[in-house]
Amino acid sequence: MLIVQKYGGTSVMNCDRIQNVANKVAKCAQKGNSLVVVVSAMSGVTDEILGYGHHFTPLPNEREMDMALSSGERITAALLSIALNNMGLKAKSLSGRKAGIKTDSVHTKARIKYIDTTYMRKLLSEGYIVVAAGFQGVDENGEVTTLGRGGSDLSAVAIAGALGADTCEIYSDVDGVYTTDPRIESKAKKIEKISYDEMLELASMGAKVLLNRSVELAKKWNVKLYAKSSFSEDVGTLITGEDNIMEKPIVSGIALNKNQARVSLYGVSDTPGIASHLFNTLANANINVDMIVQTVGRDGKTNLDFTVPKDELEKAKLCLATYKDATLEFDTEVAIVSIVGVGMKSHSGVAAKAFKALADENINIMMISTSEIKVSVLVDIKYAELSVRILHSIYELDK
Amino acid sequence: MLIVQKYGGTSVMNCDRIQNVANKVAKCAQKGNSLVVVVSAMSGVTDEILGYGHHFTPLPNEREMDMALSSGERITAALLSIALNNMGLKAKSLSGRKAGIKTDSVHTKARIKYIDTTYMRKLLSEGYIVVAAGFQGVDENGEVTTLGRGGSDLSAVAIAGALGADTCEIYSDVDGVYTTDPRIESKAKKIEKISYDEMLELASMGAKVLLNRSVELAKKWNVKLYAKSSFSEDVGTLITGEDNIMEKPIVSGIALNKNQARVSLYGVSDTPGIASHLFNTLANANINVDMIVQTVGRDGKTNLDFTVPKDELEKAKLCLATYKDATLEFDTEVAIVSIVGVGMKSHSGVAAKAFKALADENINIMMISTSEIKVSVLVDIKYAELSVRILHSIYELDK
Repeated sequence: MLIVQKYGGTSVMNCDRIQNVANKVAKCAQKGNSLVVVVSAMSGVTDEILGYGHHFTPLPNEREMDMALSSGERITAALLSIALNNMGLKAKSLSGRKAGIKTDSVHTKARIKYIDTTYMRKLLSEGYIVVAAGFQGVDENGEVTTLGRGGSDLSAVAIAGALGADTCEIYSDVDGVYTTDPRIESKAKKIEKISYDEMLELASMGAKVLLNRSVELAKKWNVKLYAKSSFSEDVGTLITGEDNIMEKPIVSGIALNKNQARVSLYGVSDTPGIASHLFNTLANANINVDMIVQTVGRDGKTNLDFTVPKDELEKAKLCLATYKDATLEFDTEVAIVSIVGVGMKSHSGVAAKAFKALADENINIMMISTSEIKVSVLVDIKYAELSVRILHSIYELDK
Repeated sequence: MLIVQKYGGTSVMNCDRIQNVANKVAKCAQKGNSLVVVVSAMSGVTDEILGYGHHFTPLPNEREMDMALSSGERITAALLSIALNNMGLKAKSLSGRKAGIKTDSVHTKARIKYIDTTYMRKLLSEGYIVVAAGFQGVDENGEVTTLGRGGSDLSAVAIAGALGADTCEIYSDVDGVYTTDPRIESKAKKIEKISYDEMLELASMGAKVLLNRSVELAKKWNVKLYAKSSFSEDVGTLITGEDNIMEKPIVSGIALNKNQARVSLYGVSDTPGIASHLFNTLANANINVDMIVQTVGRDGKTNLDFTVPKDELEKAKLCLATYKDATLEFDTEVAIVSIVGVGMKSHSGVAAKAFKALADENINIMMISTSEIKVSVLVDIKYAELSVRILHSIYELDK
């Protein structure tokens, strides 16, 4: 098997942990697998370099920041390769450049355009374990770029896709994806398999295992993704195409998002295009709108309810100041609770069951939005955790 | 003018010092000069990375150590470039690879083979200040190499040579080369100009401003070298060809070396080739012999006195164990004091003056060796500093 493994910052935060990673890699290699290992910077290093850069100016030259930032992963890659060589394994560390990661030229948040796998394939065919510095690539002029937050995950998924690897294993300090946050519901269970789409919905709602960019890329390139822990032997969670999941659960997990604020516009004239105009204005200001509910009152006026990230609320208020004839209300004391599951597509009554369970506990639902695989409700923030536990229980996710 | 500047680890040890370097660079650029700035890693960083590597094994894979070590200079180069860009100057940091530094493949102590200056020249012609990561290059396979101790100085001198720069300025925390160590003789004076050869003799004797490899390279490529301080405006010391020095002083400086031990072989049979055999044996064991004195006693037996570095004495003893018919003596309580000056070539009596001055103070001279521009004497280590001060005074170096 050809396996791509990725180890994050806490998994390589010191030499002992790097040795631990080397042991895991060695074990996998000794089973006869070919391996590409992608590593992050030792945790703290990237922040340290960012701190240096921002010492000089709040807006340091981004080409130069990439030059400095990319060093963190190079060091980890070299150290892991030293540990592996010392164990008698053939290993070679590669910078993003040598790994053939070609990106666009948007420094500090570049996108991978393609990967020239020639050199990696050569090393693999010679029996090397390839240790690639994550988070980085080079643009068409050979300038070093970095991929932004979660960049090393992206490197790993992209390499797995380009090499046609059998699996891509993302190691962190959590051992997989849970039916909900175990800090909220101790009965939360680790999910064995989950589809890309479900993972995207759970991740965007606050699950912190994988960033959406990586899951989207894995979906696009059909990479079998494992979320695993560096500190256990657990199989972790497999994130894969829906077709690869035989038993599709109706509900896979419950997500909670406490970072959204509600905006309500009452009494907008119900002229065509009003919503379009409003949301275009917000989009142009780079404000991400999540839930949207539009109703027309008996007076023929439109009421618009939607949510925006709390830290973008002030910006949203400025945008909305032009709607002079409308009454505006804002509420930051809200939370979005979401039920996610591909099985919903073929089962009815999922949402109704949720509404009833919350009503039975006197939890008022302020907004509802649904998609093919998700039902989200907006509730008072004080009921956020309770709502999660109620929904987790009625869909028997603790079983 | 085209100027290459090099700033060492203590000159860039934190962001404030990097800003200080940026200010110096800016000042020089604003005078209309073209500039290539070569930087070391922030002081401590290289040792930190070495420590990481040696955590895994006393002999970490050297190719991988180079990959890790070279990151230190990249970070400094990027940070200095950020500071310069922030001051409104055009600057770009280059890794050893991008600066075109081509080396052999001897990892951790590679030698520069040549420099492809195409990209640096292009940037200079576009008005950029080039900030190059010192200490590193790439071999013919594009693998990252490092140049060993003092490597950033070598980078700077080699770049200056390859670009045909007008001067190469080496900045450290000392403001030049002194007539002797000011900690020994407070009357020591900074030397304005000194020849490459004198500098080589002074440096090999313990002056810590420049390593010999750099001075040799500067001599070979006829690079005008300035030793300057990052923390003052002093002009420093110019190290240049003898021909560029109009007034050649008889004596330029007094050097002290307390790291040598004396070895004496008495009563070796005076057969031809005995010395040759002995010193070949030592050379094969990589022991550097410095002073050598051979005498034949009245009994027709040969006495051989020579010095070796103290930390190689045990190895030397093993080599000498085969000379069973000789009496061996070792003395670690010795010091070599040297008088260095190109003017000696055309002046006689320099050595005699020294011997008399030491004798007047009852300092016994145990060995003498002379070259065209140097007279060295071996004395009891307890007279080391006193000898330096006496010689410094009789040649009027404090004037």
